[in-house]
Amino acid sequence: MRRQLSLGAFLMATGHHVAAWRHPDVPADPMDFSSYRRAAQIAEAACFDALFVADSVAAPTDALASHSARSTYFEPLTLLSALSAVTEHIGLIATATTSYNEPYHVARKFASLDHLSGGRAGWNLVTSDAAAEAGNFGRQAHIPHAERYARAREFQQVVQGLWDSWADNAFVRDKASGLFHRPDGVRALNHAGEHFRVKGPLNVARSPQGRPVLVQAGSSQAGRELAAQTAEVVFTAQPSLVRAQAFYADLKDRLAAYGRHEDSLKIMPGVFVVVGHSQAEAEEKFQQFQERVDPRVGVGLLGRMLGNFDLSGYPLDGPLPELPPTEDGQRSRQQLLTELAGNEQLTLAQLGRRIAGGRGHYSLIGTATHIADELQAWFEGRGADGFNVLVPHLPLGLEDFAHQVVPELQRRGLFRRQYQGRTLRQHLGLQRPTNPFFTERGQP
Amino acid sequence: MRRQLSLGAFLMATGHHVAAWRHPDVPADPMDFSSYRRAAQIAEAACFDALFVADSVAAPTDALASHSARSTYFEPLTLLSALSAVTEHIGLIATATTSYNEPYHVARKFASLDHLSGGRAGWNLVTSDAAAEAGNFGRQAHIPHAERYARAREFQQVVQGLWDSWADNAFVRDKASGLFHRPDGVRALNHAGEHFRVKGPLNVARSPQGRPVLVQAGSSQAGRELAAQTAEVVFTAQPSLVRAQAFYADLKDRLAAYGRHEDSLKIMPGVFVVVGHSQAEAEEKFQQFQERVDPRVGVGLLGRMLGNFDLSGYPLDGPLPELPPTEDGQRSRQQLLTELAGNEQLTLAQLGRRIAGGRGHYSLIGTATHIADELQAWFEGRGADGFNVLVPHLPLGLEDFAHQVVPELQRRGLFRRQYQGRTLRQHLGLQRPTNPFFTERGQP
Ligand SMILES: Cc1cc2nc3c(=O)[nH]c(=O)nc-3n(C[C@H](O)[C@H](O)[C@H](O)COP(=O)(O)O)c2cc1C
Ligand SMILES: Cc1cc2nc3c(=O)[nH]c(=O)nc-3n(C[C@H](O)[C@H](O)[C@H](O)COP(=O)(O)O)c2cc1C
Repeated sequence: MRRQLSLGAFLMATGHHVAAWRHPDVPADPMDFSSYRRAAQIAEAACFDALFVADSVAAPTDALASHSARSTYFEPLTLLSALSAVTEHIGLIATATTSYNEPYHVARKFASLDHLSGGRAGWNLVTSDAAAEAGNFGRQAHIPHAERYARAREFQQVVQGLWDSWADNAFVRDKASGLFHRPDGVRALNHAGEHFRVKGPLNVARSPQGRPVLVQAGSSQAGRELAAQTAEVVFTAQPSLVRAQAFYADLKDRLAAYGRHEDSLKIMPGVFVVVGHSQAEAEEKFQQFQERVDPRVGVGLLGRMLGNFDLSGYPLDGPLPELPPTEDGQRSRQQLLTELAGNEQLTLAQLGRRIAGGRGHYSLIGTATHIADELQAWFEGRGADGFNVLVPHLPLGLEDFAHQVVPELQRRGLFRRQYQGRTLRQHLGLQRPTNPFFTERGQP
Repeated sequence: MRRQLSLGAFLMATGHHVAAWRHPDVPADPMDFSSYRRAAQIAEAACFDALFVADSVAAPTDALASHSARSTYFEPLTLLSALSAVTEHIGLIATATTSYNEPYHVARKFASLDHLSGGRAGWNLVTSDAAAEAGNFGRQAHIPHAERYARAREFQQVVQGLWDSWADNAFVRDKASGLFHRPDGVRALNHAGEHFRVKGPLNVARSPQGRPVLVQAGSSQAGRELAAQTAEVVFTAQPSLVRAQAFYADLKDRLAAYGRHEDSLKIMPGVFVVVGHSQAEAEEKFQQFQERVDPRVGVGLLGRMLGNFDLSGYPLDGPLPELPPTEDGQRSRQQLLTELAGNEQLTLAQLGRRIAGGRGHYSLIGTATHIADELQAWFEGRGADGFNVLVPHLPLGLEDFAHQVVPELQRRGLFRRQYQGRTLRQHLGLQRPTNPFFTERGQP
């Protein structure tokens, strides 16, 4: 069989387009579970590998927050747990930050979700981009970038160790003798590191996937290195095939140093998609969102993307002001947007509108054939192993993709027509990790 | 209409009886979601007010843990989120400790569950009884009792403040003007206290119930005082009607000092129930569990209940050894069990078996009529406003209660025949709290 691509459905409240909620077809309540259930069921009917939910542990407080639909939303683990009960196959990837969490809680909740869902959980490890989160956890300022990654590394080690607390076959449940689990089927972790001291063991059995799938979304040098060492999926924003290819090659090249095969890490760029039966129809659809962008909201989003800058004091019809260099995390994006603004002589308002849909991700607006051509080119050109699909509005934008683009990918033999496995690992073609602390027979 | 009693269904993996998992009728896997779904649906069909899930953030590590089914289990918030999607009316009460958590996470997850479930969430605030939890969160030892409660008080204040971040009518979602929420419909918390500094606002809208229902399960003086000040439901273990009446009177008497009416706090003792069509059948049923108790497991449980003592070195057929006084939290239980052992001249093994089912809660073993008589006596005798029903085995023990005892309570006019409301507050007869930071029209 031909190599298959992976698809994630990015679930962001009313949709990925900043003005989606203003569209008449869009349910404008980001806390309405039924919209999420609908979206999940659309994605599952189309055999997507996974649902993907971003996160932040702070509400945006900038002046324009009142004009966007991203101030309140479901907490990802509760949301995906609820969705696990109304789906059967699709993977469930939730974002959780290592900067303002405790590893025991994170390990436990994802392992619990993996059990609840029969092996469909994934953890998107981030180190937080919203500096505002610090203030909700007793800190004056965001943890600096390097320290965030040092903490993330240790955090991930602890979580993985906790996930390996129990042998796969520890639980004998022998009703006759009364032995529930083998005493040697469990081990304490006794981790004592720079950031954490965690005894363990975890109070959740080793999960159906062995470990939930580890996803990452950092793109800095530190982020790539952590991904090369530990991640199984990387979610990334790439503005062009050439850039995507460079990122892909760079990341896959790093794997050998950790003794890893390149198939053990799947790279899934985000792609913002508006599909129509003709190019004109797709563009007309896109315009329906674009024309609803309040320029101040677009500029607010731009400021966040450039690294949490407040641009509200600058004239909307003026140029992008010169900005001080920001943290590693946003630096490449800052460069890119500065170039774009310069090359095309865009005003602040125009630049804000430009990113209102894709938010820095590659954008495809056109027919199913056109979109499939591009996805295929990225996939076959070593720019991607799959894609996180971002649609302007939910749940209906996902239906457009499912009904038009997915069949085209299937016709080309690039995407499954039905699920072959039950777990997220099986969908992604990732191996179930053995537990290094116990032999194959599950004993130490 | 006659005053109605409330019923909670206590969901503890394979059941409340320590040997339940060894019974041939019991699915012995505490991480099998389908058993929980079944139990939840039985409870909902019987119109229970709520499901109730206990918690600990550590696995038991005593020598006999291998012989009991309580080492691994679902994390409560993920479990109840999943159950929210397969139920419609029943309340969902999860335990979370204030000792090893951050208030922002707790506020957020419960608010999220309240939205997911359409207003059915409850938070059972505990300060942790398992000292082992400390080691999973970087501490050498359990936080001392008084400090736990000081922290709990501040934690609860922060959570409540975060739940009140948004005015009920903040979200105008005006597609035409682009105003999503009124700028004055949200407020930061800016809490700076002894244990926490939390800026807020919460990134979850004010929830359907205004605030999730606040439940508590502490019985010490400090626990009662915190409950009188803040709790809306108290879960308690009372060994007799007389004791229950004293506890009930004491707690209700404390309310006036906080300007509260006695109906604003519901007292729900746990009651362990084994029901049969005759007294003999009920006893025979109970014996099927009792005879499966490994004496060492019973004694292990006893040690935990007395305050985390390791009794494994003492002879099983000897008396209960003299124990040093323990923390406030377990002191009354220690006294009670010491008295019982002395009065009835019980050996260690016998005492362990005695508590194997009820685990210190009142036990009722008999016909539906007998059980209803007792529950009615407690309810009408001001010993209880309702009960947390603990059944020996799950899910089937709950079916016995639902099919035999519930109809008897309904015949007596003491319990609803169908749900009258949609939210947990409505089931319990608790008012929806207004938001003190915004006027009735939702504005500051
Ligand atoms: C595609 C993509 C998605 C991300 N999603 C989140 C998110 O949901 N929540 C979050 O706090 N950070 C998110 N981040 C931020 C990063 O994971 C990381 O925490 C931050 O950007 C710094 O990492 P870096 O410097 O390695 O890029 C995302 C980053 C990228 C590139
Ligand atoms: C009926 C009952 C149920 C309890 N359930 C839990 C629980 O699920 N998890 C937990 O950590 N503590 C639990 N506790 C412990 C208390 O909430 C509290 O944290 C500890 O006992 C100290 O409080 P106290 O001294 O006020 O009783 C429970 C206590 C009682 C009386």
